[in-house]
Amino acid sequence: MVNLNNKSVVFLESPKEYPIPGVHLKVESKMLDDELNEGELLTRNLYISLDPYLKTKMGGVGHPSIYKVGQALDSYVVSEVIASKNDKFPVGAVVFGNLGIEEYTRVRTSNDLKIIEDARESKVPLSSYVGALNLAGRTAYCSLIDIGKPKAGETIYVSAAFGGVGQIVGQISKILGLRVIGSAGSDEKVDYLVKTLKFDAAFNYKKGNIVESLRSAAPEGINIYYDNVGGETLEAALEVLNRFGRVVLCGMSSIYNRTTPYGIKNIILAILKSLKLEGFVANQFSDELEERFFKDVKSWLENGDIIYKEDITEGLENTPEAILGMFQGKTFGKAVVKVADL
Amino acid sequence: MVNLNNKSVVFLESPKEYPIPGVHLKVESKMLDDELNEGELLTRNLYISLDPYLKTKMGGVGHPSIYKVGQALDSYVVSEVIASKNDKFPVGAVVFGNLGIEEYTRVRTSNDLKIIEDARESKVPLSSYVGALNLAGRTAYCSLIDIGKPKAGETIYVSAAFGGVGQIVGQISKILGLRVIGSAGSDEKVDYLVKTLKFDAAFNYKKGNIVESLRSAAPEGINIYYDNVGGETLEAALEVLNRFGRVVLCGMSSIYNRTTPYGIKNIILAILKSLKLEGFVANQFSDELEERFFKDVKSWLENGDIIYKEDITEGLENTPEAILGMFQGKTFGKAVVKVADL
Ligand SMILES: NC(=O)c1ccc[n+]([C@@H]2O[C@H](COP(=O)([O-])OP(=O)(O)OC[C@H]3O[C@@H](n4cnc5c(N)ncnc54)[C@H](OP(=O)(O)O)[C@@H]3O)[C@@H](O)[C@H]2O)c1
Ligand SMILES: NC(=O)c1ccc[n+]([C@@H]2O[C@H](COP(=O)([O-])OP(=O)(O)OC[C@H]3O[C@@H](n4cnc5c(N)ncnc54)[C@H](OP(=O)(O)O)[C@@H]3O)[C@@H](O)[C@H]2O)c1
Repeated sequence: MVNLNNKSVVFLESPKEYPIPGVHLKVESKMLDDELNEGELLTRNLYISLDPYLKTKMGGVGHPSIYKVGQALDSYVVSEVIASKNDKFPVGAVVFGNLGIEEYTRVRTSNDLKIIEDARESKVPLSSYVGALNLAGRTAYCSLIDIGKPKAGETIYVSAAFGGVGQIVGQISKILGLRVIGSAGSDEKVDYLVKTLKFDAAFNYKKGNIVESLRSAAPEGINIYYDNVGGETLEAALEVLNRFGRVVLCGMSSIYNRTTPYGIKNIILAILKSLKLEGFVANQFSDELEERFFKDVKSWLENGDIIYKEDITEGLENTPEAILGMFQGKTFGKAVVKVADL
Repeated sequence: MVNLNNKSVVFLESPKEYPIPGVHLKVESKMLDDELNEGELLTRNLYISLDPYLKTKMGGVGHPSIYKVGQALDSYVVSEVIASKNDKFPVGAVVFGNLGIEEYTRVRTSNDLKIIEDARESKVPLSSYVGALNLAGRTAYCSLIDIGKPKAGETIYVSAAFGGVGQIVGQISKILGLRVIGSAGSDEKVDYLVKTLKFDAAFNYKKGNIVESLRSAAPEGINIYYDNVGGETLEAALEVLNRFGRVVLCGMSSIYNRTTPYGIKNIILAILKSLKLEGFVANQFSDELEERFFKDVKSWLENGDIIYKEDITEGLENTPEAILGMFQGKTFGKAVVKVADL
């Protein structure tokens, strides 16, 4: 094989607020040295996940970037092996795992890659393997079960409910027999949550007072708050949580792009109502729980118990704009980039 | 028996900030109607506990008072039965439980009273039955075990460490093999924590930066933060907690006398470090755990494994000043009022 021209999304500078295309990251074309060593692979990337976690990796307020200037960002990717010096991953295999945000990736250590055995006759869209069946889904499933401890008949509130994680949290909760309330940043998202994803209630957090919206969606209070956004929404949920309520601290999207921190003023309610707030990182859960996640969510996707709305941006060159759009709430569903067809 | 002249501490008005003698509460003398009905008792109160919880009961910012104007406050009390129409509590029995902050109490329902069988030859001071063997001790023991989940070799940090709850939390933690760090509001208290109560390290939170003091007392970080004060100290502890750390949210003394709430700005650390924060109310624990508490703490007090420093104010008439002093941190140890000798 000859040298390949490879487009990558590369890091330029840590964003203090929003990551701006051309300032903090950009698309760059470079020749890829595809002369493989023993054990290495070359993959052609098909679908790439965009996650808010990219902001953390790029650094910003208080944290340095994990990337060097000019280095390609990385993410959860579905990819086809197009050259291989590794028997475990033959040419033609379709894999998913952590790879570069680029058209082609030269894979030096393939440890975390997994083969999608039925890729060519998959019953779920291949893109599921970067979100619903990857970080977003694993995060949702494992933390909801392990930390949220949902029980049939309880009420759960999920913020950023139409995001990659939130959609799954809400729909698993429905499957488990909970009453599910979601919030999102536009009326279209709210509509979709109720009409298509069958949430029991949803509201647009940008309109009106969050405590009031939540109280009227959950007149008897909530038992679990699945927190994707932090800040004012976390404060509102603390107000409306019932005794012995649980807060799953998953993410704080409302503060990632702020330069001044937001102070939570009503933590004392955790004492008065015996609340538990627990944070986690997605890789802390047991192998057993991760296996249950993959099996359950795959079968729920296959039989339609879970619908997973993805907002697919076509073409690697549009990735920086898509990343910015995700942080601005412009994405309608889970943010994914499609680089190529299988 | 003839009618008794009875001094009581009565409620006047909800304090927005500190409870001021003469403004929010005062001592009043009244004749007590001691003509008992069937089932009733008359008790002569000996020791009375003063707890920060009084502030909550008296109302203030956002919460109404549970007392009516002119009504006697109530608390944890050790008392002698001096008249009885109730076979379970004969004259001469020494009891402890919830009674009025007054010289004599006419007890209409004696449900929660317990008899101290060995009161006249007690190996622990009778005053222990209002604090170490009552709310303060029960709170400390049950929440530390059930929520803190202390393990030998771990490091715990306790704020308001020389208070009624804090002293017990720290000393139980030592017994369980933890490294114990405390903070308090004066150098004398800090000295006592280290020299007499055998804390491994302690600091005066009013001097210097709390994060720095905590880091130098716990260079390898802390695993449990037992929070009696909230606010800035809670923020500092979140900074210094290690991965999978637990925060026992017991009380927020630093905000009880503030009119403006304090915002916790670094809750995001709970996600990055997989921290758990859990609040509780003292009566939520199992009977089994409460029984273990009483048995363990009583024997630790008897054999000197736990030292319980009480700051005893003599005379009921000095109670309003003692209450104010407790909120101002003037109390040296657990705040107790001695009304009379047995
Ligand atoms: N702990 C972990 O290990 C772990 C793992 C994965 C993800 N996470 C976190 O989980 C959260 C959800 O992740 P995701 O992948 O599902 O992302 P996502 O929700 O699909 O994407 C971000 C969404 O957050 C919402 N948002 C943006 N700014 C906001 C603001 N100021 N206030 C409220 N909402 C805002 C937007 O939707 P709206 O239109 O509704 O505003 C946006 O679409 C993120 O915070 C992420 O960092 C944590
Ligand atoms: N959750 C429950 O069910 C439950 C049950 C019992 C008690 N509690 C709570 O547990 C905490 C401790 O109770 P306790 O009976 O042991 O009270 P305590 O600590 O004996 O009395 C209050 C002490 O708090 C400290 N303090 C006062 N203002 C402060 C401030 N601004 N910042 C930091 N510290 C301050 C003072 O000591 P310094 O000189 O060290 O400042 C004061 O002596 C209280 O918050 C109480 O409300 C909760």
